[in-house]
Amino acid sequence: MLEKTTRINYLFDFYQELLTPKQKNYMELYYLEDYSLGEISETYDVSRQAVYDNIRRTEAMLEEYEEKLGLYRRFEEQSRILEEMRDSLSKKDLKRVSSLIEELENLD
Amino acid sequence: MLEKTTRINYLFDFYQELLTPKQKNYMELYYLEDYSLGEISETYDVSRQAVYDNIRRTEAMLEEYEEKLGLYRRFEEQSRILEEMRDSLSKKDLKRVSSLIEELENLD
Repeated sequence: MLEKTTRINYLFDFYQELLTPKQKNYMELYYLEDYSLGEISETYDVSRQAVYDNIRRTEAMLEEYEEKLGLYRRFEEQSRILEEMRDSLSKKDLKRVSSLIEELENLD
Repeated sequence: MLEKTTRINYLFDFYQELLTPKQKNYMELYYLEDYSLGEISETYDVSRQAVYDNIRRTEAMLEEYEEKLGLYRRFEEQSRILEEMRDSLSKKDLKRVSSLIEELENLD
């Protein structure tokens, strides 16, 4: 059984434009609409195994894109910095805010 | 003749991991090392036309990736916001800094 993870949801969000329409459809039904593999296979009149293989391959592709482009990793890093920035701002620690701006600029 | 643009340099920077080794090599020589098409064709012992076609196709791919993922567009937008943030911070306009943090969070 495939595990429906938050991580894959995020990766799908970042890289879905790089997938084929079929890959996108299956992923949307499985991850966003919470269909079961059986329900998708009935909807598209294909075997459950074919749906399973397609989704697994798509997940592997998403992980490969993430390895190459790291958009999710950057997103998490940026979120962390912005949260700290908000916190430093509320404490009027402007020096810290300034150095966090620099961190954002140098994020790679 | 191909035009060596800043834009393509940026797009190459963002998406080079998605290119094949050959595409990467040609682009690096042409855009980063400033080789001419003739010099690349001599280096790799292929026709000048083949190098030209490869680079043109690669540029089209980079534009397609940008259309789908918009990393360069986001980068420019983020740079603009960070610059204004730095400026607002130096003027102690903390309310503006706070709303710029929000802009960064909602960047899509």
